Amino acid sequence: MIRVTVWNEFKHEIRNPEVAAIYPEGIHGCIASFLGANDDMEIKTATLDMDEHGLTDEVLDNTDVLIWWGHLAHGSVRDDIVEKIYKKVHRGMGLIALHSAHNSKIFHKLMGTTCSLRWRDNAREHIWCVNPSHPIAKGVPADFRIDREEMYGEFFDIPAPDELVYIGWFNGGEVFRSGCVFNRAHGKIFYFQPGHETNPIFHMPEIQKIITNAVRYVYNENKAEDVACAHTPAVE
Amino acid sequence: MIRVTVWNEFKHEIRNPEVAAIYPEGIHGCIASFLGANDDMEIKTATLDMDEHGLTDEVLDNTDVLIWWGHLAHGSVRDDIVEKIYKKVHRGMGLIALHSAHNSKIFHKLMGTTCSLRWRDNAREHIWCVNPSHPIAKGVPADFRIDREEMYGEFFDIPAPDELVYIGWFNGGEVFRSGCVFNRAHGKIFYFQPGHETNPIFHMPEIQKIITNAVRYVYNENKAEDVACAHTPAVE
Amino acid sequence: MIRVTVWNEFKHEIRNPEVAAIYPEGIHGCIASFLGANDDMEIKTATLDMDEHGLTDEVLDNTDVLIWWGHLAHGSVRDDIVEKIYKKVHRGMGLIALHSAHNSKIFHKLMGTTCSLRWRDNAREHIWCVNPSHPIAKGVPADFRIDREEMYGEFFDIPAPDELVYIGWFNGGEVFRSGCVFNRAHGKIFYFQPGHETNPIFHMPEIQKIITNAVRYVYNENKAEDVACAHTPAVE
Amino acid sequence: MIRVTVWNEFKHEIRNPEVAAIYPEGIHGCIASFLGANDDMEIKTATLDMDEHGLTDEVLDNTDVLIWWGHLAHGSVRDDIVEKIYKKVHRGMGLIALHSAHNSKIFHKLMGTTCSLRWRDNAREHIWCVNPSHPIAKGVPADFRIDREEMYGEFFDIPAPDELVYIGWFNGGEVFRSGCVFNRAHGKIFYFQPGHETNPIFHMPEIQKIITNAVRYVYNENKAEDVACAHTPAVE
Repeated sequence: MIRVTVWNEFKHEIRNPEVAAIYPEGIHGCIASFLGANDDMEIKTATLDMDEHGLTDEVLDNTDVLIWWGHLAHGSVRDDIVEKIYKKVHRGMGLIALHSAHNSKIFHKLMGTTCSLRWRDNAREHIWCVNPSHPIAKGVPADFRIDREEMYGEFFDIPAPDELVYIGWFNGGEVFRSGCVFNRAHGKIFYFQPGHETNPIFHMPEIQKIITNAVRYVYNENKAEDVACAHTPAVE
Repeated sequence: MIRVTVWNEFKHEIRNPEVAAIYPEGIHGCIASFLGANDDMEIKTATLDMDEHGLTDEVLDNTDVLIWWGHLAHGSVRDDIVEKIYKKVHRGMGLIALHSAHNSKIFHKLMGTTCSLRWRDNAREHIWCVNPSHPIAKGVPADFRIDREEMYGEFFDIPAPDELVYIGWFNGGEVFRSGCVFNRAHGKIFYFQPGHETNPIFHMPEIQKIITNAVRYVYNENKAEDVACAHTPAVE
Repeated sequence: MIRVTVWNEFKHEIRNPEVAAIYPEGIHGCIASFLGANDDMEIKTATLDMDEHGLTDEVLDNTDVLIWWGHLAHGSVRDDIVEKIYKKVHRGMGLIALHSAHNSKIFHKLMGTTCSLRWRDNAREHIWCVNPSHPIAKGVPADFRIDREEMYGEFFDIPAPDELVYIGWFNGGEVFRSGCVFNRAHGKIFYFQPGHETNPIFHMPEIQKIITNAVRYVYNENKAEDVACAHTPAVE
Repeated sequence: MIRVTVWNEFKHEIRNPEVAAIYPEGIHGCIASFLGANDDMEIKTATLDMDEHGLTDEVLDNTDVLIWWGHLAHGSVRDDIVEKIYKKVHRGMGLIALHSAHNSKIFHKLMGTTCSLRWRDNAREHIWCVNPSHPIAKGVPADFRIDREEMYGEFFDIPAPDELVYIGWFNGGEVFRSGCVFNRAHGKIFYFQPGHETNPIFHMPEIQKIITNAVRYVYNENKAEDVACAHTPAVE
């Protein structure tokens, strides 16, 4: 059983009726709902305004995969909680960073770069798979169209991904490394670009399939103990 | 001094007046001409119909960087000469494979994959840099437009490049890993997608700059001896 | 069910009583035996002297993972059969190349390099994991000792592996990238260095665990159709 | 002209006469001295106890490559200065992290992992090149011996390096990825393991050659402007 916690800052849905109409249960609710249909997953949600952002030690200790959606409120996420997540990823908790999570504290901290990019609203996108045998791409069409999405364009200031799975095309002429896997210590991270709040991205079957696959891919059943430097005897 | 040999099958320019009008000296002549303006390079050309395709042992022994343009006549390139090039790359000769050289015998042999892709004529392309500090991108705009070019689209069946430098955008909705570096033994290989024969690609200053940079990048001044398995004494 | 074919040239076991004593059923028999204990695997064997080296179209069409052990007789393997294996790997058949398979025709063809290395008999080895969360390392100690093994040392002339899982240490002072994953088209390849015929390597539980894990890792349940260049309509 | 700043915490040399005997001018003085012999380099030094650790804005603004040696006093390095260095690396300042700099704040921050390892004093090491055409390896023997060095062993908790250049062998049975290149934004980072303070490592010609090559390799003559997310008009 993969224990997934879907975290959302949950601000747009409250402030903006357009977003609330698309995601009446919040973006986290939508993601929790389609993931919940899988027998091998157990889903919780957490949001910024909950106590400790809903990410208490107990929650984190019982999370195998953390999904992160944030945008307006990156700066409001407490540094001590970011530090806890960081350590959990090192020990094997998977992380799926969605859309504007490229600018979240936790993603920056794991990447070691600025993660900056170019952007513009209201573009049309095609998502192309450049690694068709990758588990994240299983059962997903080789390419698919997103009728309206925020454009995120290169240069995307990330370290070269350990695995590049998707590249996005935008009708304004831009491209983007839209689906990237990074390994950090014992944890796997999947960054996936689609998911702007005013577009019904998370209702799309292709997107749901990719996120579902990604949960299984970043899941590490063998969490590691604390990783620390160790004085060790010779083996010879 | 970098000794460059520009190889071209030189078929389209002879058969097709449209191509001849764009490249009156042949594609090889055009490339040789702009590279020849560099004080640190010495340029030769060679074509399919020359004796041994112009790639005699003497020529190969005096080539630091081989540039390859082929399309119609991949099958006519002699296997024994491909084998010689293969070994030269292993010992440190740089290779720049342009456009439809993705389907050349030498590129296939170095990649170990089918190098297949999707394609269509007469697209508009934008080239985006995803590795702006890479030597091949030096002095080249972050993105630039090619008004008319053949579309090459993903999935491009290559091993994950050692370095991904450029991604192409096409107005038909496609993307492509357009500029890729691969290391094989002591040789560096740069694959670069633009360069269809009916479009004046090699007259574009951005393209000329990229190819010029690539010559310097794939150049290895320290060629290696024959690489063979060796029985060796312990060092301890 | 993963359909595994274990291929062995099966020469040493016949000629050399020392090897026959270690592997009375042949190296292939030993590997087939420990793999056969897994409920999710179905094991066949094939050897050089069988008709078509035991790798008929029917066998290859029903192989998900091919394990390859060869040494003396690399040159006797038919080129047309190597070509068939090559295409099967491209379409998703996994390949595990053991020990001196670094010099097999199929491994060379997939790598695009010479795969040369330094070597010497009768060394003591330690195998260290440098990617502890990798599925191939699951349940295997972080390091383990092989009392006697042929030394394979750097420089190992392979492309930079897509994933480096193990590094070997030898008492003569050498190191080696002993466990490497490569992706080629839809196929995954695992090269694993231990396995000299005069040492009982394939009887070691750590080695058996690694090979068992590797079978599951290189298995691709979704074989791809023929990969060929395709003229395609615009998606926009 | 490459402007190099060699930074050293400069604690061991003051407290420990054994270290002072090896490095009477400090480790920074030794490195500055051998690098200073190169016509294309201009060398400064800086140490922890200087004002702002010797890394004022003026110094950092005039540094192309920063070399970092620290061990005892990682915790004493001011976070605000680490942040400045971090941003400079992003814009193109090269960083060479020597030996126990694996545990420095700046290296951790750039890696996004714990950088933990196993260690033990007084080992014998061999350094093997696994990337012989790499510019950092130019003119350096394929392998060389260090008579006495601190052992650093795997698992080394770093992201998979963008380029692996050296692997270390230790007589206690361990191996280590001793020479690793990482790219972060516009900056290149070279981590190099040898350099324990009680061993005369930086007096060795092979080590001096590698560090000299590394200075040239991580040097980026084209520093980038501030990298920030940008709202941009369509290019189509």
